[in-house]
Formats: sequence, C-alpha cells, structure tokens
Amino acid sequence: MDKNVVTYMGFESDYQQSCIVLFGVPFDGTTSFRPGTRFASSVMRQESYGLETWSPYLQRDLDDYDFFDGGDLDLPFGNPIRVIDMIHDYSKEVLLDGKKPLMIGGEHLVTLGAIKACHAKYPDMAVIHFDAHADLRDEYMGESMSHASVIRKCHEILEPNNIYQFGIRSGTKEEFEFAKANTYMELFEVNTVKSIVDQIGKQPVYITIDLDVLDPSVFPGTGTPEPGGISFKEIIEAIKSLDTLNIIGADIVELSPNYDQTGISTAAACKVVRELSLVMVEDK
Amino acid sequence: MDKNVVTYMGFESDYQQSCIVLFGVPFDGTTSFRPGTRFASSVMRQESYGLETWSPYLQRDLDDYDFFDGGDLDLPFGNPIRVIDMIHDYSKEVLLDGKKPLMIGGEHLVTLGAIKACHAKYPDMAVIHFDAHADLRDEYMGESMSHASVIRKCHEILEPNNIYQFGIRSGTKEEFEFAKANTYMELFEVNTVKSIVDQIGKQPVYITIDLDVLDPSVFPGTGTPEPGGISFKEIIEAIKSLDTLNIIGADIVELSPNYDQTGISTAAACKVVRELSLVMVEDK
Amino acid sequence: MDKNVVTYMGFESDYQQSCIVLFGVPFDGTTSFRPGTRFASSVMRQESYGLETWSPYLQRDLDDYDFFDGGDLDLPFGNPIRVIDMIHDYSKEVLLDGKKPLMIGGEHLVTLGAIKACHAKYPDMAVIHFDAHADLRDEYMGESMSHASVIRKCHEILEPNNIYQFGIRSGTKEEFEFAKANTYMELFEVNTVKSIVDQIGKQPVYITIDLDVLDPSVFPGTGTPEPGGISFKEIIEAIKSLDTLNIIGADIVELSPNYDQTGISTAAACKVVRELSLVMVEDK
Amino acid sequence: MDKNVVTYMGFESDYQQSCIVLFGVPFDGTTSFRPGTRFASSVMRQESYGLETWSPYLQRDLDDYDFFDGGDLDLPFGNPIRVIDMIHDYSKEVLLDGKKPLMIGGEHLVTLGAIKACHAKYPDMAVIHFDAHADLRDEYMGESMSHASVIRKCHEILEPNNIYQFGIRSGTKEEFEFAKANTYMELFEVNTVKSIVDQIGKQPVYITIDLDVLDPSVFPGTGTPEPGGISFKEIIEAIKSLDTLNIIGADIVELSPNYDQTGISTAAACKVVRELSLVMVEDK
Amino acid sequence: MDKNVVTYMGFESDYQQSCIVLFGVPFDGTTSFRPGTRFASSVMRQESYGLETWSPYLQRDLDDYDFFDGGDLDLPFGNPIRVIDMIHDYSKEVLLDGKKPLMIGGEHLVTLGAIKACHAKYPDMAVIHFDAHADLRDEYMGESMSHASVIRKCHEILEPNNIYQFGIRSGTKEEFEFAKANTYMELFEVNTVKSIVDQIGKQPVYITIDLDVLDPSVFPGTGTPEPGGISFKEIIEAIKSLDTLNIIGADIVELSPNYDQTGISTAAACKVVRELSLVMVEDK
Amino acid sequence: MDKNVVTYMGFESDYQQSCIVLFGVPFDGTTSFRPGTRFASSVMRQESYGLETWSPYLQRDLDDYDFFDGGDLDLPFGNPIRVIDMIHDYSKEVLLDGKKPLMIGGEHLVTLGAIKACHAKYPDMAVIHFDAHADLRDEYMGESMSHASVIRKCHEILEPNNIYQFGIRSGTKEEFEFAKANTYMELFEVNTVKSIVDQIGKQPVYITIDLDVLDPSVFPGTGTPEPGGISFKEIIEAIKSLDTLNIIGADIVELSPNYDQTGISTAAACKVVRELSLVMVEDK
Repeated sequence: MDKNVVTYMGFESDYQQSCIVLFGVPFDGTTSFRPGTRFASSVMRQESYGLETWSPYLQRDLDDYDFFDGGDLDLPFGNPIRVIDMIHDYSKEVLLDGKKPLMIGGEHLVTLGAIKACHAKYPDMAVIHFDAHADLRDEYMGESMSHASVIRKCHEILEPNNIYQFGIRSGTKEEFEFAKANTYMELFEVNTVKSIVDQIGKQPVYITIDLDVLDPSVFPGTGTPEPGGISFKEIIEAIKSLDTLNIIGADIVELSPNYDQTGISTAAACKVVRELSLVMVEDK
Repeated sequence: MDKNVVTYMGFESDYQQSCIVLFGVPFDGTTSFRPGTRFASSVMRQESYGLETWSPYLQRDLDDYDFFDGGDLDLPFGNPIRVIDMIHDYSKEVLLDGKKPLMIGGEHLVTLGAIKACHAKYPDMAVIHFDAHADLRDEYMGESMSHASVIRKCHEILEPNNIYQFGIRSGTKEEFEFAKANTYMELFEVNTVKSIVDQIGKQPVYITIDLDVLDPSVFPGTGTPEPGGISFKEIIEAIKSLDTLNIIGADIVELSPNYDQTGISTAAACKVVRELSLVMVEDK
Repeated sequence: MDKNVVTYMGFESDYQQSCIVLFGVPFDGTTSFRPGTRFASSVMRQESYGLETWSPYLQRDLDDYDFFDGGDLDLPFGNPIRVIDMIHDYSKEVLLDGKKPLMIGGEHLVTLGAIKACHAKYPDMAVIHFDAHADLRDEYMGESMSHASVIRKCHEILEPNNIYQFGIRSGTKEEFEFAKANTYMELFEVNTVKSIVDQIGKQPVYITIDLDVLDPSVFPGTGTPEPGGISFKEIIEAIKSLDTLNIIGADIVELSPNYDQTGISTAAACKVVRELSLVMVEDK
Repeated sequence: MDKNVVTYMGFESDYQQSCIVLFGVPFDGTTSFRPGTRFASSVMRQESYGLETWSPYLQRDLDDYDFFDGGDLDLPFGNPIRVIDMIHDYSKEVLLDGKKPLMIGGEHLVTLGAIKACHAKYPDMAVIHFDAHADLRDEYMGESMSHASVIRKCHEILEPNNIYQFGIRSGTKEEFEFAKANTYMELFEVNTVKSIVDQIGKQPVYITIDLDVLDPSVFPGTGTPEPGGISFKEIIEAIKSLDTLNIIGADIVELSPNYDQTGISTAAACKVVRELSLVMVEDK
Repeated sequence: MDKNVVTYMGFESDYQQSCIVLFGVPFDGTTSFRPGTRFASSVMRQESYGLETWSPYLQRDLDDYDFFDGGDLDLPFGNPIRVIDMIHDYSKEVLLDGKKPLMIGGEHLVTLGAIKACHAKYPDMAVIHFDAHADLRDEYMGESMSHASVIRKCHEILEPNNIYQFGIRSGTKEEFEFAKANTYMELFEVNTVKSIVDQIGKQPVYITIDLDVLDPSVFPGTGTPEPGGISFKEIIEAIKSLDTLNIIGADIVELSPNYDQTGISTAAACKVVRELSLVMVEDK
Repeated sequence: MDKNVVTYMGFESDYQQSCIVLFGVPFDGTTSFRPGTRFASSVMRQESYGLETWSPYLQRDLDDYDFFDGGDLDLPFGNPIRVIDMIHDYSKEVLLDGKKPLMIGGEHLVTLGAIKACHAKYPDMAVIHFDAHADLRDEYMGESMSHASVIRKCHEILEPNNIYQFGIRSGTKEEFEFAKANTYMELFEVNTVKSIVDQIGKQPVYITIDLDVLDPSVFPGTGTPEPGGISFKEIIEAIKSLDTLNIIGADIVELSPNYDQTGISTAAACKVVRELSLVMVEDK
C-alpha cells in the first residue's frame, strides 16, 4: 500500500530532478509579541490542497515544473543560534547541489541562516526585502539575535548597498535613520520595485517576503499586524516584476496561523508561494 | 399572543402581494474544501436585524416594496440530485405565480435548480455570473454534479453565448480555455459590467453572485477564499449597473458563517441582498 | 534529501511488517447538523506530534510495535455510496493481507464500509459500539444511507444479536424500542462493558467508537454534542476492558476539528487511538 | 406558500391549546462582566433543531404535549426598569390566561419581572434557585437594579423563608451572612433538592435556573464562569426531582453564546429546557 | 520594589506635566446590536505594547511629548445617565486644569459627556465626526439616550451648523434628511476633510472618531460593521489634515475586542490614537 | 489625578507591609508544542476583576491580608538562561526581605529560577509538584534547559527525596523509571496529598502547580492538554490540604490564554491563585 503523503500543493517530484527545494522552518523563538509562526509550514501544506496549480497572473502551471518539498526541519527550542546553523547547513546543501532554496518560515530571523549560505556561494548577491518592519535594530531587549534585527545582521554580511526594502511602515527613529545611510527603502508602498529590478539586472538576488508587508485586512494572521499595508494585488504585481531577475533563493515568513481564524492569511501565503515559485523556475 | 417571528430584514408581506420571493437553501453537500454554507440563510436572517432598510446607494427603502420570506427548504443530506429537484420545483411555483425567486444558498450547485426552472419559462434567458472561480469543470473527483461544474451545467441548458462571467481569478487551464470558446469572461475585475448590461438590453437575465468574488479581506467567510478579489464598493457599483435589466431571478451563494467569526461577511452578504432586492423591484 | 513526512504519532513502519493499518476517511457527506469531520484525520496527524508513545494506562509503548499509516483516502463529494465502496475495498485489501484496519473518520456512516469488508471475512463477527446516539433509524430525511442509520444498516448485515451499544443517550422513541428488540444497549453509561467482553469471549469483534460518547466537556469538537456523556477516564477504562478480545478491526469517528477551538477534543481522540492501537496489537 | 418558521424545537402549537408559553428576553443591560446573554434565546431556537424530542431521562416526548413559542420581546436598551415592566406585563397576561410562563433569558435580572407577576397571582409562592452566585447584594456599583441583587429583590417581595438556593459557590461575605439569616442555601452542591421538594409539597413554586450553576467545563458560555460547579448529570437529576411540584413558572438564564464557541453550552441549555418543560406539563 | 504598571504605549508622564490626558470609558450600556466595547480601553493598553512610538506618517515620536494615562473610569451598569455625568465631571476637571481630554470608549454615547464639558468652556466649538452611522436619531426603541442619537443630542447643545460628518453610509431616511438641513455630511468618503479644516480655521474643535468609519476588512472588531468604509490609509490622511486645527478634545469609540479575534482592529485603533495624539500636541 | 491601575484582584498593598509578593513571568521560550503562556499573567490581572475576594472554601477573605503585585518582569526573547537568572534575582530579593514569592508563569521552566533562590535560603526545602507531565527528562531536542526537564533540574539542586509529584499522566518510559528511583509520584490522581503533607510537617516547602494537572475540560487553555486529569474540586481540596505546611514560595504555570477562547481556564487559574494565596498567608 501507498503512503498518501501531504506535500505543498502536492509537489511530487523527487529531489534530483527538482531545481527548487521547498522546506519549512517551524521556529518562532525570538518572536516578541504574538508567537505561533512555528505552525505556518504545516498549515500551509494542508491548506494548499485548495489551490489551483494554474496561475492566471503568470499564465503558467506548477504542474509543468519540478519542485521538491523536503518537509520541515526538526528544531530545538530555546536556542536560536543552533536553529540558524541548521538552516544554514540545509540551504548550503541545496545550493551545493545546484538548486534553489525556497524556505517557509517561521519568524524572520530564519532568513539569516539562508542568506549566510547564499552569500558563501554568491558573495556579490543582493537582497530584496518586503516587510512592514525595518528589522534594522542593533539589538532587541538585550539580544542581538532577533527577528527585529535580522536585516541589520544581513547588512553586516553583504557587500554595502545591496539591500532593497519595500513597504516599510514601522520602526524606531534610529532604524529609519540607519536605512537612510545604508539601504534603499521605499516607505509604505512597493511602487519602485520595477525600477530597482531593472537596476539590479543579472546580479544574484535573494528575495525575502515578510508577509506582514500585506495589509492586515488581507493578512491578519501574523504576530505584529501593522495597518496601512499593501494589497494582495500589489504584492502579486511586485512578484511579477521580479520575473527577469536571477533569483538564487527566497523565503516567505511570519504567517502565524493561530491568528488566522478565517484562513485567509494562509490562502494568501499559499498563493504568494505559488507565484514566487513560478518566477523562480527556469525555462519559463 | 403573537408569534414574534424572525424574517430577513423583517420582511412582513404575505406571498400574494409580493413580487419577490426570498428563500433559503441550506445545502453544501458537494463542497470540496470547507463546508458550512448550509448555515448561511439562517444566520443572515438573524443578522439582518442590524441592517437599515434605507439604501444610501440606490436612494430607495425596502419598506416601500413588498417581499416575502418563505424560510428555508427542508432538504435531505447526501443526495444532491434530490436537492436540485426540490429547488427546481420551488422556483417553478414562484415563477408560475408571476413572481421572482431570490435564493440564498448554500453552495453554488443550488443555482442549477433555479436556472432550470427559469429556463423553462424564459428559454432565451442570459446569466450574469460573479465569482472568483470559473465553475466550468466537466466533473470534479469523478462527480459531474458539483459546485465546481455548475456553470458548465448551466451552459449545457442555455442557448449559446448567454453566460457572462466577472471577477474570475481561479480555475484550471482547461476551464479558462473553455471560457475563451464559450462564455464572456472578465478576469479579476468587474469593470465591463456596465457595457455588457447595455448589450443585453431587455433580454431576461438571471443573476448569480458567488460572494467569494469579493476579496477575502471583506468576505472571509467562505469555503474557498481567493485573495485578489474585488472590493465591496465595486460589487455595489456592479449591482447598481444592473438596474436597467429585466431580472427574472437571482441568487447569492457561498457564505459560510463558521469562517466568519467577526461577522463582517454576513454583514456584507446582507447588504448585497438589500441592494440586489432593490434593483429587482418594479415601479422603482 | 529526505522527505520529512507527517504520519500519525510518527508511525514509520512499512506496510508489510505492520499488523495494524491506520487510514483516514475525510468524509462528512450525510452529516445533518454541523459538518467538518472531514478534517479529523489530517488534524490528528498534526497534533499527535504532542503525544507520548508510552501509555501509563496500559504500560505499553507504541514504539515496541509496528503500525502503518496509509494516509487518507481520496474521496468524491456528494456521493455516499461510492465512498462506502471505496472504504470497503481498502479494508478488504488490508484484511486479505492478514492485517487489521484502524479507520479514522469522518462521520459515522464510514463504519458501514469497513464492517461490510470484515463481515465477508468473519461472518460470525460482533460489533461493540460506543456512542451518544443510537444510530438505529430506518432512514433520515428520506435517505436510508445516513450517519443516523448506520448501526441499523450493520444490523441488517450481521447475524442477529451481535450488536452491543454503550453510552447511548439520544434517539427517537422508535430507536429505543428497536434497540430493546434487537441489540444490547446500556443507556448513559459504560459500566457493563467488562461483563459483555467476558460473554463475547473469542468471537471476532469490530470496535466502533463514536467519540461523542464522551461528555462535551472533554470532547466538544463534534457535530452533535450531547451533554451527559462519559468521562475520559471511563472511556479509557472501557478500552482497557477490551484487551482480552479478538479485535479484527476498529474505527473512531465524529471528531470535527472546526468545533474544537481549544484542541482538547483532538488531544482526547489521539489518546483514544493510542490506547485502542495498544489493545489491538498482538504479542502484548 | 408557507413561511417555514424557526421555533424552539419546532414548537408548532397555537397559544390557546398550550399550557406552557415559552418566550425569550434578549436583555443583558446590567451585566457587569462579559455581556452577550441577549443572544441566548435566538441561538437556542436555531440550535434546538439538533435535539431529539424524546427524553430518555423522563421517558417522555415533547411531541405528546402542546407548547407555544411566543418569540422574543422587543426591548429598549439602557433602561432596566422598562424591561422588567415589559416582562411583568407579558408574564401577567400568560398567567391570566391560565398558562405557565417559561422564560429564556437574558441576564438574571429578568427573573424579577416574572416573579412579580407570579406573586400577584400566587402570594404564597416559593422560589427554587439554582446558581453559582448568591445574587443577594443590596446594590452593585451603586445600582440596586442588578443581576447581582435579583434574588435579594425577590426576597423583598415574597413571604419570608420561601427562597431555596442550590449550588452557590461565589459571593461576598455579606451575601453569605444574609443567606444564613434569610434563605435556605446549599453550598457547592445540589444534594438536598429532593428533601426540599418533599418539604415544599404542593405550594406554588417558581423555578429559576442560572445555568452558571453548571461547571464551566460543561457550560463555558456564560458571563461569569465559576469553576467548581455541578455536572450535567446532576442538574438533570435535580430537575427530575422537581417532577412532583406545583410549578407555576420558570426561567433559565445567563447563556452567553459569544463565549460558547464550541456550542456545548447551548446544547446543554436546550436539553435543560427540554427536561424542565417536561416536568412542567400536566397529565404526565 | 516597583509596580511594573501597564499604561497606554507606556505613557509614564505624571498628570501635572502632561497636556493630554488619556482615559478609558468601559461603557456599552445602550449598544443595540453586539455589545463589548467595554473591553476596548483595557485591551488597547495591553496591545499598544507592540506599537512603535515613532510615527513615520507625521515624522514625530510620542516619547518627545508628555501624556498622562488616567486609567479607566469605574462605572455603574444599567444607568446611562449616571455614566454620562461621570464622563462630564472627569472631562471638566481635565479642561479646568488646562489640559485636553482624549477619551477611549466604549460606545458612542460617551461622547455626549465630553462634549457637554467642552461646550461649557468653549461655547463656539465645532465637532468633526467620523462614522459609518449618522447617529442622528431622535430616539431608539423608545430611549432618547442612545448611541444612535448621540450626534443629534450634541446638535441640541452646540451652536447651529457646527457639526461636520464624514464617511457616513448607514442611517434611516429621516436621519439623512435631518443631516441635509442641519449638518455638513460627506457620504461614504472623507475626501473633503481638508477643505472643511481650512474653513474651520482656529475655531475650537472636538474630534470624535467612531472607528466603524473604517471598512470592516481593516476594522472588523465593532458592534455594527458596515461594509463599504474607508481604508486605513484614508483615515491616516484625514487625521494628518487635522494638524492645523485647534483641537480641544477628542475621542475614539466603538472598538469591540470580542469581535476582533485576529487583533487587527485593536492594532488599527492603537495607531489611530498614536496619530491623533500627535496632532493634538503643542510645540510640534 | 489618580492612575487607576490594574493589579491582580485589585491588590493595593505596598511592598513593605505585604508578606506575599506576586509577580508575572511572561516567558514561553522553550515551549515545544503550542506557545503563548507569555500572556497568562496579564490576562489573569484583567480577568481577576470578576472574582470575589471571599473564599467559601477556606472561609477567608483576601481583603483581610496584604499582598503586593509587582507586575511582570521585562524579559529578553530567545535566551532562557538570562530569563532564569532574572527570575532568580527577583525571587532572591523578595526572600531577603522576608517575604514569599508567588510567581505567575509562563512556562514551567520558570520554576527553576525561583527554586534556585529558595534553595539558597532553605537548603532543606521540599517541592510539591502538581502536573500532568513528569518533567523529568534529561534533555529535550538536544537542549537541557527545557520545560520538559525542569523538575529533573530541580532534583539536581535539592537534597535527595524531596520532590513529591501528583497527578502525573504523561511522560516517557524513562521518566517514569527515573521517578520510581528518585521522587515520590502519584499517577493520575491527587489522593495522597494529605498524607504527604502530614509526613512533611514543618519542613520548608515550595509549591509548583502546573495547571495542566487539571482535566482539559475545566482547563483547556494550555500548551499540551492531557485528557484524564483531575477536577477543579480536587485541586481545591488538595490546596486546602496544604494549609498546615510551611510554604516558602509558590508558582502556578502553563496557562496559555490563546487556547482559552471561553475564558474558563483563566477563571480557574485566578481561583487557584486566590486559594493558594490564602493558604500561604500568616495569622490565618
């Protein structure tokens, strides 16, 4: 008898033939407000069952490409540094095998592990960052390893001027000042994505989408909802704009299913992953 | 002593004097994802208590017209064909008495019963269809009688080229190809309703509104939420556009109250019924 | 890379070496009140992660035995007869291979498919039935194939006087009269399980546990909660009483996760499956 | 066409032939903690659909008796005194017509209106009171007309020593001292109901059941849950004990559906009304 | 040891040095539909913890100004007139001390107490009113003291032509007719705020924001959600437009946390208070 | 003006005069299953408003004694060791001042910080532990600092044979074997508390109550609900049994408000703290 296994959108391909490797990271250990992103990847697998493989936006079908769903990492609790190391190691293996990691968080700190691995392979890489929050703190409550400082940590790793932030609408005065000096940041909106994409050209790029960049009306299920965000149509347009880029890896983070009683946030997250997968494939 | 009975918006008119007959169909037997539309009509009756009879959009008042609320049909479970027959018979009686059926679903398959009855009286009728989903499948999981194939079934009954679809944003590649050949379909938006209404003129028209055409932000309470939908203001504008049509019957479907913990979907559904009722009346 | 797959309690054994085959049946098509048992098996898989493999009640450990989790059946919607046939075929294959089916419903009608398959192999079998409801109706809303008539249907298949019902506290006058003539029924309580077990001896027995036999305080997550049920300690004692029986198959049904907002019903269901598995194993 | 109207348990009898008149009082205006009992009667009407008419406890069937469901009173907001007057007037009319009022609250203050009306007809009446709270305050936050003082107000109306309180487990030191001097009170339990019933004999009795006498495990849906209450089986036993009394009216109060997400409190309330109705009928 | 006290956004300033005095009014006694605004101020205090003090909209920081959080008033239940008097007295004291009251409701009726106090000091004051509802009824269910008549009551106190209403989309025909004759009213939108602000100039103004002016998608947590409202970005733009006014007091009302299961309404309310506070400060 | 501050049950006494110091520890950083105990202390403060100060169980009133509520500790995220140190330091200061710490968790790991501080002052102390889980693991997912190993860690600190465990019903085979060799453990029930209390006599004792010792029916709001627990009446009886002990400190842990949608778990937790406070006072 067959095991009738649940994978994201029914991804059935094996590892070898797939160029994109999806994996879940059920970690929310530095979440300061409302925890629960640890449940995101497993809930998304269940709910992606209701999603069509055909994208009317990109006019492409997931069934025409190969994806591997590696399931979730088995993580310790209470030790963020070990968690980031495990993410790093997994991503590194995927990259060594010539594939692209597509990580489902978890909280935003998980991005650090993947970007460390990507940077080792692509030292000249850039990062495109969608988020409601600047995530540029030096430390938070005395801890430097925090979801609130993750882009600051990435900044320390990358070459200067390689971080592009969109949709930001919350942070301390200091973070906004840091951004003025050190990153490209569009406040509130994502109107300039297209022009930044043109500017980046064929440089290797990592995409990190903190889903709270979406307005809480369409994405309530997150730890720190920030009203005044972008619409679903706007994030889809932004993702479509990425289609010409050389994307080397990506993640979506901060879905917190406990705060998504209606399921609409999970539905949005699943569609974002579908569209993001379809701009990451080759031979489009 | 008087029975203090709950009806939709307090509709008190008797059957004979009413030109519009509202009735509920608590059926969700072919729902593939999240069931529960069976509760919609009864919850809407309760919650319509909070709704004003005056429409500031149409500048009309429900109290100036006669509506009859016939309550809910008593349906069997597990037998979709009997259910469609019962809807057909009820609609037929309403139509024979020279009145217009206004059905509250239930899942979208219920539309088939009402359209069969309307088609018997008006063979040249058209259908205007608002929905997130194409509903044009030939069958679903081996069953041809399904919410996912209901418009395809209607297509088989109606004269060719009489189906107009708006707001569609989810389906299989095959459904979109079928639509190109057989229906009018506007993707994502409802911008062309006004021009289609002008084209239809005085042809008899049935209106079917799958409320999931609305964005999940304003209408989370449905079985298969699809982000990227239209706003409430847009559906109201679209309904106002229908005001010149010869509407012979209508339905609204797919409210699922269990997924409407906040009640905003029910509030939206009630207002849609109010506006729809007010474009269906005579002597406006 | 490995797929990190979710199974019930992490059951990892392969089919051949396992003597018990667990499978899910996500079907609630004849549910008359509150639907949603279709989600039970998948939610239980996720939540069983929090459960220890060691039973302090039976002093046994799941890790000392082999279980196979076959995942969920892929079922059509709106066609109960096809669903029962698919359950029958799956159970039949399991039985032919010399193994025991352990089915996770779904609504109670699913039991019919498994009992048909068991009866073909064991014509002298008995059924032990825990439930709040008698389920002895001849038909319900005009349909004979219904969760409310499932034990009546089983009665028609089995040899006379082979149905033992416990915990029953809801039904029509006619059902209770039917029970007096045709089944053994203990009202409200499960105090006589031990003596019935002694009476049955080594006859082949199928166990069907409708979890709504539990009091709604400990098991709220079900379609038709009936206050006045038994406690969790009582169901565990009852299951321990079954340890000497020749159990040929079993099911647990009627967990409806949408009505289990706290998760306690799912936790109870998982523990019931653990204990039931541990009385079904051989070489105890 | 027929209006297919929702009544409690489908009560269809007309007013004249019924000896028991059920009516709802959607009032929670003095609720100090969590409001929402205003929704109880309408939710109970909807949910009573799932309840059998046959009581296996009393071995009686609701269908063998006539009950009238008068619907809900239309009440003002923010004016408790007018509300109590309206309850009084309704109850008075029922009593004048030789029938028994059976009121569905609402908060506990509603009892005052009904008892005033009963006392005018039966000056020697007693009151049997089930509750977690003593409700014997003189005033609450400066207001004497409060749910927390309702039994104290009744005490002022009735002849001395005619109040019997059961299950009480919360109150101020002063309330418990007042009880010692002025009422019969059993703390925590309802073990002495039978002996009090024997003592009362054929004296006219009004029954008021604040459902929070039940343990929050079985009845979470109430404004002020008090752990340590009685079980559902215990309340049913207590109601069965009332079968020999001369009951002239009754109420059940304090179901708050917003805090009953699972629906088990509503299910319990509906069954309590069924059993209470069946001990209030004549010609048993 | 220190008491580690919860205040709105951690407002730590003492009363004397603060020019703005925030206080909560947990009152919902005339709410006609879904009660629960009584919980708003306490929930907002808890949740404001997640909010940054820096406003990227106004480019100001709460930490640069002094605010005093006076906690919640201790109110009676069931007596709206006493409640309004208590609000009046508190506001009066704040105004006498040369400070500005910033009230967190509660239902909309609370505004009456504050406006009475403001009017005594500023007889020529105007009121700017954001709301989905006209609130211009003469009485509601026989009671003139109601959330549905609060602006009508204010109209009776103020000089003529000093009420400006924005975003209104629900009311009786009579209310809209009253508005035509007696107030400035913009239907559905808030596009004319800027021009009205210019017209008002330096006249003393009270701002009352019924948060249900926001669309239910972004603000579901309210008693009477009305689809078709304004977006969060629009309310922020409107508040920024108020920056030149002479604001003497303000309130935000009608957050009902029980209907805000996701927390997004509370998040929006907290940000509205932050922005409103920052336009009310002096020395900007 | 006065700050109207929220404290547990309105505790108003100052630090100096109080012999019991309550404080909250919003930490859930090693929670392996469902996080959220970080919200317990603040929710309990809010909800304790609905609780009477009089205990009918102990016939004592909180108002007759002095308690200090120190609010919540401000903790970092993602660093359990720093958290335990901060708890230790706070407890140490309380103990040095001759007072008793009463800690509101948070997850169970927090107990370690308080017991370290107590042990420094009372090296011969014992621990009475109520819990569903043994918490005797050596490590969990590779981390030794975990809620699942907290009693094992305490065991390493205390003198041998000073740990008494009650109500345990979940753990690994290894934990139960460790218990047999190293602690006193009563499985499932709390029947032997009285005899153990007699045995302990006047030895200094710390009480740690993991509230999941309660059955999920009465206490659903916890991270890992384990059906088959004790009733509320049983925990109250057990606490009353502690009245003769020399209690030097105590905690209650593992309330997770997000999973307590009805509020009954919080209500139970508040009453447990009331009763526990009243057995900890002097001059009873």
